Amino acid sequence: MKCKNCPKPAEVKIRAHNSAFCRRCYLVFFRRRVVRIIDKASMVDRDDRILVAVSGGKDSLALWEVLASEGYETVGFHLALGIGAYSGRSFEQTRAFADARGLRLEVHSLSDDGLGVPDMMQATRRPPCAACGTAKRHYFDSAALEYSCNVIATGHNLDDEAARLLGNVLRWQTDHLARQHPVLQPTHEKFVRKVKPLYLTSEFETAAFAFLAGIEYVVQECPNAAGATQLTYKGLLDQLETTSPGAKLAFVNEFVTRGSAGFVSKERETAPKTCGGCGMPSFGDLCSFCSLRAEVTRKRRDTPAGATSL
Amino acid sequence: MKCKNCPKPAEVKIRAHNSAFCRRCYLVFFRRRVVRIIDKASMVDRDDRILVAVSGGKDSLALWEVLASEGYETVGFHLALGIGAYSGRSFEQTRAFADARGLRLEVHSLSDDGLGVPDMMQATRRPPCAACGTAKRHYFDSAALEYSCNVIATGHNLDDEAARLLGNVLRWQTDHLARQHPVLQPTHEKFVRKVKPLYLTSEFETAAFAFLAGIEYVVQECPNAAGATQLTYKGLLDQLETTSPGAKLAFVNEFVTRGSAGFVSKERETAPKTCGGCGMPSFGDLCSFCSLRAEVTRKRRDTPAGATSL
Repeated sequence: MKCKNCPKPAEVKIRAHNSAFCRRCYLVFFRRRVVRIIDKASMVDRDDRILVAVSGGKDSLALWEVLASEGYETVGFHLALGIGAYSGRSFEQTRAFADARGLRLEVHSLSDDGLGVPDMMQATRRPPCAACGTAKRHYFDSAALEYSCNVIATGHNLDDEAARLLGNVLRWQTDHLARQHPVLQPTHEKFVRKVKPLYLTSEFETAAFAFLAGIEYVVQECPNAAGATQLTYKGLLDQLETTSPGAKLAFVNEFVTRGSAGFVSKERETAPKTCGGCGMPSFGDLCSFCSLRAEVTRKRRDTPAGATSL
Repeated sequence: MKCKNCPKPAEVKIRAHNSAFCRRCYLVFFRRRVVRIIDKASMVDRDDRILVAVSGGKDSLALWEVLASEGYETVGFHLALGIGAYSGRSFEQTRAFADARGLRLEVHSLSDDGLGVPDMMQATRRPPCAACGTAKRHYFDSAALEYSCNVIATGHNLDDEAARLLGNVLRWQTDHLARQHPVLQPTHEKFVRKVKPLYLTSEFETAAFAFLAGIEYVVQECPNAAGATQLTYKGLLDQLETTSPGAKLAFVNEFVTRGSAGFVSKERETAPKTCGGCGMPSFGDLCSFCSLRAEVTRKRRDTPAGATSL
């Protein structure tokens, strides 16, 4: 099979787009596609300063690579989750990526606050992914303020968004559906715009880009993800994609362009208070992150020394 | 395992309801559940006259059995599709069911109009299920008028509705979503209310009812259904149900009670015309069924004699 754009043999075949590319043309195709998605959805302006949430995986590093090489002003932000060797490798990969390209990277470690994911798992009854999500939202918001960024960009890809959408739709969680959008405008002056430039780019496409662009990334999935419902949904959608190439793309894209109009978030109707813990906007006296932190602190205080070691 | 309601051993286990029943208690449970669903959604009043669309399969016969034995006034209507031995058996089973119970059955044969499903398949490029659906809608509407029924009840079960909903959601067909409801009020004086009393009752539950109630039904699926997208969706939902019992029920039920509110049908906004062919309400000069019929007639006229034989 030949490249779609030049006479060279194809190295990447994208079934959902019914296209195939050689290495060089694929890199160009991928970058252009991401930039086009950013522009079409007015995700980022050229004078914005973008906090890129980088985990060390293929998606966030590919995103950072595209944004930086396209000339956007970026600050990389890595939240170290404290999940043993997995988190160690994730940090090293991120640091190596930033150093090799001379990019600014800021790092915060959950364990420094006594809130590593294993601490939260032991101290609360929340599923690890829920606690981790709450912590990420808090630290991303705070970091955007601290480093004077007016946009947060995350590496959520098409597979992530399709699985999340399927989960929301299977229980018709209308409030979640109202907030599932590739561009979320801030609902408070301390928040900034949140964007997902890879939301129409599949996991396979991002992995192919990272590989062909020579980006070294952590291949291992988070060890806590095993058995997560999200993976069940991804498996079902993968099966669907095999019989109907492009099904995931249509599912997410048609939702954003058409389906989402029927769902209106209740969040914007209420003026948030100020969290008594961290000073960030909140619906209660404490924001959900500070409630989580208080829960972990209480549990640690009530547990005899030594009993909490993992 | 024991019956949930009495000391007898259970014969049917319903995972989605986390329940098990002996034969007698299951029959009571099933009937009561269907009646409760009918009442809760105001599907049928006690003085309504219901056209029950009966194919000869488990769902429609189980529905007719419940409606008739609960004292509702029913007219069974069987549309013979002309699909060889499958249609022959379907008619015989329906006739035997009605005769054994002294129920009124009206029958119309598509082949008498030269519109058997094989004729339509050969004469048009439409998928057989689409053409068949168009014909069913037309004949059910006409039959309700002819037999003075003010409600049409069909045997669509939870699995049918979940698969249809998944298909509509995967492409965010908002107009289809607006019309996917277990009770559709008429949009014209020649139409009647359409209800699906089994929409929350799974295929397994209906089959168990039919079997335990001694209803003989056609087990074979329609031979044209093989490879239909609907079956792919059913397969995916079956997998989901295995890992999360009750997932299908939540998907359909939450859609009807919550999700559907965001979708508004455009159909009601337009006053329909009268079809120049059959006199039923229509959006164009001909209704979709009469367009289909015209297409088949044209094709037959343009094809040399003998070439259309199947």
